[in-house]
Amino acid sequence: MKINRVDHIGIAVPNLQEAKKFYEEVLGIKITKEDEVIEDQKVKVSFVPCGEVELELLESTTEDGPIAKYLAKNGGRSGIQHVALNVDNIEEAIAEMKEKGVRMIDEQPRYGAGNSSIAFVHPKASGILVELAQRLDETK
Amino acid sequence: MKINRVDHIGIAVPNLQEAKKFYEEVLGIKITKEDEVIEDQKVKVSFVPCGEVELELLESTTEDGPIAKYLAKNGGRSGIQHVALNVDNIEEAIAEMKEKGVRMIDEQPRYGAGNSSIAFVHPKASGILVELAQRLDETK
Repeated sequence: MKINRVDHIGIAVPNLQEAKKFYEEVLGIKITKEDEVIEDQKVKVSFVPCGEVELELLESTTEDGPIAKYLAKNGGRSGIQHVALNVDNIEEAIAEMKEKGVRMIDEQPRYGAGNSSIAFVHPKASGILVELAQRLDETK
Repeated sequence: MKINRVDHIGIAVPNLQEAKKFYEEVLGIKITKEDEVIEDQKVKVSFVPCGEVELELLESTTEDGPIAKYLAKNGGRSGIQHVALNVDNIEEAIAEMKEKGVRMIDEQPRYGAGNSSIAFVHPKASGILVELAQRLDETK
Protein backbone atom coordinates (compact mmCIF):
# COMPACT_ATOMS: atom_id res chain seq x y z
CA MET A 1 0.00 0.00 0.00
CA LYS A 2 1.36 3.36 -0.98
CA ILE A 3 -0.04 6.49 0.65
CA ASN A 4 -0.15 9.01 -2.22
CA ARG A 5 -1.07 12.13 -0.30
CA VAL A 6 -3.46 13.58 2.23
CA ASP A 7 -6.76 13.29 0.39
CA HIS A 8 -8.86 15.50 2.63
CA ILE A 9 -9.28 16.75 6.19
CA GLY A 10 -12.71 16.14 7.73
CA ILE A 11 -13.97 19.09 9.77
CA ALA A 12 -17.19 18.65 11.75
CA VAL A 13 -19.25 21.86 11.85
CA PRO A 14 -22.58 22.72 13.48
CA ASN A 15 -23.70 24.78 10.46
CA LEU A 16 -22.34 24.32 6.96
CA GLN A 17 -23.48 27.69 5.54
CA GLU A 18 -21.91 29.51 8.48
CA ALA A 19 -18.67 27.50 8.27
CA LYS A 20 -18.14 28.26 4.58
CA LYS A 21 -17.95 31.99 5.22
CA PHE A 22 -14.45 31.86 6.76
CA TYR A 23 -12.99 29.97 3.79
CA GLU A 24 -14.83 32.00 1.15
CA GLU A 25 -14.99 35.49 2.59
CA VAL A 26 -11.85 35.61 4.74
CA LEU A 27 -9.47 33.28 2.89
CA GLY A 28 -10.94 33.93 -0.56
CA ILE A 29 -11.15 30.27 -1.58
CA LYS A 30 -13.86 29.28 -4.06
CA ILE A 31 -15.85 26.27 -2.89
CA THR A 32 -16.57 24.10 -5.90
CA LYS A 33 -18.33 21.02 -4.58
CA GLU A 34 -21.19 22.00 -2.33
CA ASP A 35 -23.79 20.43 -0.11
CA GLU A 36 -23.59 16.79 -1.21
CA VAL A 37 -25.78 14.68 1.08
CA ILE A 38 -24.39 11.23 1.96
CA GLU A 39 -27.36 9.34 3.40
CA ASP A 40 -25.25 6.41 4.59
CA GLN A 41 -23.11 8.66 6.81
CA LYS A 42 -25.88 11.11 7.71
CA VAL A 43 -23.91 14.13 6.57
CA LYS A 44 -24.08 17.07 4.20
CA VAL A 45 -20.66 17.92 2.80
CA SER A 46 -18.89 20.82 1.09
CA PHE A 47 -15.29 20.69 -0.10
CA VAL A 48 -12.87 23.61 0.19
CA PRO A 49 -10.02 23.04 -2.29
CA CYS A 50 -6.58 23.82 -0.89
CA GLY A 51 -3.66 22.70 -3.06
CA GLU A 52 -3.86 18.93 -3.59
CA VAL A 53 -5.95 18.54 -0.43
CA GLU A 54 -9.59 19.34 0.26
CA LEU A 55 -11.04 20.55 3.53
CA GLU A 56 -14.24 18.53 3.91
CA LEU A 57 -16.80 20.49 5.92
CA LEU A 58 -19.28 18.07 7.47
CA GLU A 59 -22.70 18.96 8.89
CA SER A 60 -24.90 16.26 10.39
CA THR A 61 -28.27 15.64 8.74
CA THR A 62 -29.66 13.84 11.81
CA GLU A 63 -29.34 14.05 15.58
CA ASP A 64 -27.79 10.60 15.90
CA GLY A 65 -25.20 10.48 13.11
CA PRO A 66 -21.42 10.24 13.70
CA ILE A 67 -20.90 13.98 13.18
CA ALA A 68 -23.74 14.85 15.57
CA LYS A 69 -22.15 12.58 18.17
CA TYR A 70 -18.70 14.08 17.58
CA LEU A 71 -20.04 17.63 18.01
CA ALA A 72 -21.95 16.66 21.16
CA LYS A 73 -18.74 15.25 22.68
CA ASN A 74 -16.92 18.41 21.65
CA GLY A 75 -19.29 20.72 23.52
CA GLY A 76 -21.16 21.62 20.33
CA ARG A 77 -18.07 23.19 18.79
CA SER A 78 -16.48 22.49 15.42
CA GLY A 79 -13.50 20.17 15.36
CA ILE A 80 -11.07 18.39 13.08
CA GLN A 81 -12.65 14.95 13.04
CA HIS A 82 -10.48 12.92 10.68
CA VAL A 83 -7.59 12.86 8.21
CA ALA A 84 -8.09 10.93 4.97
CA LEU A 85 -5.10 9.43 3.16
CA ASN A 86 -5.28 8.73 -0.55
CA VAL A 87 -4.61 5.22 -1.84
CA ASP A 88 -4.87 3.72 -5.33
CA ASN A 89 -6.88 0.67 -4.38
CA ILE A 90 -9.10 0.61 -1.32
CA GLU A 91 -9.66 -3.17 -1.31
CA GLU A 92 -5.91 -3.83 -1.32
CA ALA A 93 -5.35 -1.20 1.37
CA ILE A 94 -7.98 -2.76 3.66
CA ALA A 95 -6.53 -6.24 3.10
CA GLU A 96 -3.02 -5.01 3.94
CA MET A 97 -4.20 -3.26 7.10
CA LYS A 98 -5.95 -6.42 8.25
CA GLU A 99 -2.88 -8.54 7.49
CA LYS A 100 -0.86 -6.19 9.69
CA GLY A 101 -3.38 -6.69 12.51
CA VAL A 102 -4.79 -3.17 12.30
CA ARG A 103 -8.38 -2.87 13.49
CA MET A 104 -10.68 -1.36 10.85
CA ILE A 105 -14.05 0.32 11.43
CA ASP A 106 -14.92 -0.57 7.83
CA GLU A 107 -13.80 -3.99 6.68
CA GLN A 108 -15.55 -3.37 3.37
CA PRO A 109 -15.26 -0.15 1.34
CA ARG A 110 -18.21 2.19 1.27
CA TYR A 111 -19.14 5.25 -0.73
CA GLY A 112 -17.55 8.53 0.34
CA ALA A 113 -18.32 12.11 -0.67
CA GLY A 114 -16.66 13.42 -3.83
CA ASN A 115 -17.00 10.09 -5.68
CA SER A 116 -14.64 8.06 -3.55
CA SER A 117 -14.49 4.62 -2.02
CA ILE A 118 -13.45 4.78 1.61
CA ALA A 119 -12.76 2.85 4.80
CA PHE A 120 -12.17 4.18 8.31
CA VAL A 121 -9.32 2.79 10.40
CA HIS A 122 -10.16 2.34 14.10
CA PRO A 123 -8.67 5.19 16.18
CA LYS A 124 -6.95 2.58 18.38
CA ALA A 125 -4.40 2.16 15.57
CA SER A 126 -2.97 5.68 15.55
CA GLY A 127 -4.81 7.60 18.25
CA ILE A 128 -6.77 9.64 15.71
CA LEU A 129 -9.50 8.84 13.19
CA VAL A 130 -7.81 8.00 9.87
CA GLU A 131 -9.74 7.31 6.68
CA LEU A 132 -8.33 5.58 3.62
CA ALA A 133 -9.80 6.95 0.39
CA GLN A 134 -9.62 5.90 -3.24
CA ARG A 135 -10.86 8.54 -5.70
CA LEU A 136 -13.00 6.67 -8.20
CA ASP A 137 -12.55 9.28 -10.92
CA GLU A 138 -8.75 9.06 -10.69
CA THR A 139 -8.39 5.30 -10.55
CA LYS A 140 -11.01 3.74 -12.84
CA MET B 1 -3.37 36.74 0.63
CA LYS B 2 -3.26 33.56 -1.37
CA ILE B 3 -3.51 30.23 0.42
CA ASN B 4 -1.05 28.03 -1.48
CA ARG B 5 -1.86 24.70 0.10
CA VAL B 6 -2.32 22.87 3.37
CA ASP B 7 1.15 23.18 4.89
CA HIS B 8 0.78 20.64 7.68
CA ILE B 9 -1.70 19.02 10.05
CA GLY B 10 -0.85 19.31 13.74
CA ILE B 11 -1.54 16.12 15.67
CA ALA B 12 -1.15 16.18 19.46
CA VAL B 13 0.19 12.89 20.83
CA PRO B 14 0.99 11.72 24.37
CA ASN B 15 4.16 9.91 23.20
CA LEU B 16 6.07 10.79 20.04
CA GLN B 17 8.04 7.53 19.74
CA GLU B 18 4.86 5.50 20.12
CA ALA B 19 2.93 7.68 17.63
CA LYS B 20 5.55 7.33 14.90
CA LYS B 21 5.12 3.56 14.76
CA PHE B 22 1.76 3.72 12.95
CA TYR B 23 3.10 5.94 10.19
CA GLU B 24 6.42 4.11 9.82
CA GLU B 25 5.54 0.49 10.48
CA VAL B 26 1.94 0.30 9.30
CA LEU B 27 1.82 2.93 6.53
CA GLY B 28 5.48 2.55 5.53
CA ILE B 29 6.23 6.29 5.44
CA LYS B 30 9.81 7.37 6.17
CA ILE B 31 9.97 10.17 8.75
CA THR B 32 12.68 12.59 7.70
CA LYS B 33 12.55 15.43 10.20
CA GLU B 34 12.57 14.09 13.73
CA ASP B 35 12.34 15.31 17.29
CA GLU B 36 12.90 19.03 16.83
CA VAL B 37 12.33 20.80 20.15
CA ILE B 38 10.60 24.20 19.94
CA GLU B 39 11.20 25.78 23.36
CA ASP B 40 8.82 28.68 22.70
CA GLN B 41 5.89 26.33 22.13
CA LYS B 42 6.98 23.68 24.62
CA VAL B 43 6.82 20.88 22.08
CA LYS B 44 8.94 18.19 20.48
CA VAL B 45 7.99 17.66 16.84
CA SER B 46 8.40 15.03 14.13
CA PHE B 47 7.12 15.45 10.57
CA VAL B 48 5.56 12.64 8.55
CA PRO B 49 5.74 13.60 4.84
CA CYS B 50 2.57 12.84 2.92
CA GLY B 51 2.44 14.33 -0.59
CA GLU B 52 2.79 18.10 -0.40
CA VAL B 53 1.57 18.07 3.22
CA GLU B 54 3.30 17.03 6.42
CA LEU B 55 1.66 15.44 9.44
CA GLU B 56 3.21 17.25 12.39
CA LEU B 57 3.30 14.97 15.44
CA LEU B 58 3.47 17.11 18.58
CA GLU B 59 4.50 15.91 22.04
CA SER B 60 4.53 18.32 24.96
CA THR B 61 7.87 18.95 26.68
CA THR B 62 6.20 20.35 29.82
CA GLU B 63 3.05 19.78 31.84
CA ASP B 64 1.67 23.24 31.15
CA GLY B 65 2.28 23.78 27.42
CA PRO B 66 -0.51 24.15 24.84
CA ILE B 67 -0.23 20.51 23.74
CA ALA B 68 -0.32 19.26 27.34
CA LYS B 69 -3.47 21.35 27.88
CA TYR B 70 -5.04 20.08 24.66
CA LEU B 71 -4.39 16.46 25.61
CA ALA B 72 -5.76 16.98 29.13
CA LYS B 73 -8.99 18.41 27.67
CA ASN B 74 -9.13 15.46 25.27
CA GLY B 75 -9.04 12.86 28.05
CA GLY B 76 -5.32 12.20 27.51
CA ARG B 77 -5.93 10.95 23.97
CA SER B 78 -4.26 12.05 20.74
CA GLY B 79 -6.19 14.49 18.60
CA ILE B 80 -5.96 16.62 15.48
CA GLN B 81 -5.14 19.96 17.05
CA HIS B 82 -4.71 22.34 14.11
CA VAL B 83 -4.54 22.79 10.34
CA ALA B 84 -1.76 24.99 8.95
CA LEU B 85 -2.24 26.81 5.65
CA ASN B 86 0.76 27.87 3.60
CA VAL B 87 1.19 31.53 2.63
CA ASP B 88 4.03 33.36 0.87
CA ASN B 89 4.36 36.20 3.35
CA ILE B 90 3.29 35.84 6.97
CA GLU B 91 3.44 39.57 7.80
CA GLU B 92 1.13 40.40 4.90
CA ALA B 93 -1.20 37.55 5.82
CA ILE B 94 -1.47 38.73 9.45
CA ALA B 95 -2.10 42.31 8.30
CA GLU B 96 -4.85 41.18 5.93
CA MET B 97 -6.54 39.07 8.59
CA LYS B 98 -6.54 42.01 11.00
CA GLU B 99 -7.91 44.34 8.32
CA LYS B 100 -10.77 41.88 7.82
CA GLY B 101 -11.47 41.98 11.56
CA VAL B 102 -10.28 38.43 12.19
CA ARG B 103 -8.99 37.84 15.71
CA MET B 104 -5.43 36.49 15.77
CA ILE B 105 -3.74 34.59 18.62
CA ASP B 106 -0.41 35.81 17.23
CA GLU B 107 -0.35 39.37 15.98
CA GLN B 108 3.38 39.00 15.30
CA PRO B 109 4.93 36.03 13.51
CA ARG B 110 6.92 33.54 15.56
CA TYR B 111 9.21 30.66 14.76
CA GLY B 112 7.55 27.38 13.83
CA ALA B 113 9.01 23.88 13.47
CA GLY B 114 10.53 22.98 10.12
CA ASN B 115 12.04 26.45 9.60
CA SER B 116 8.82 28.39 9.22
CA SER B 117 7.35 31.65 10.38
CA ILE B 118 3.86 31.19 11.74
CA ALA B 119 0.82 32.81 13.32
CA PHE B 120 -2.23 31.18 14.86
CA VAL B 121 -5.70 32.48 14.03
CA HIS B 122 -8.11 32.52 16.98
CA PRO B 123 -10.53 29.55 16.79
CA LYS B 124 -13.45 32.00 17.02
CA ALA B 125 -12.81 32.83 13.34
CA SER B 126 -13.49 29.40 11.86
CA GLY B 127 -14.42 27.13 14.77
CA ILE B 128 -11.10 25.27 14.56
CA LEU B 129 -7.49 26.17 15.26
CA VAL B 130 -5.95 27.42 12.00
CA GLU B 131 -2.29 28.34 11.65
CA LEU B 132 -0.82 30.43 8.85
CA ALA B 133 2.69 29.32 7.89
CA GLN B 134 5.40 30.73 5.67
CA ARG B 135 8.23 28.30 4.90
CA LEU B 136 11.41 30.30 5.25
CA ASP B 137 13.42 27.99 2.99
CA GLU B 138 10.88 28.39 0.16
CA THR B 139 10.39 32.13 0.33
CA LYS B 140 13.73 33.73 1.17
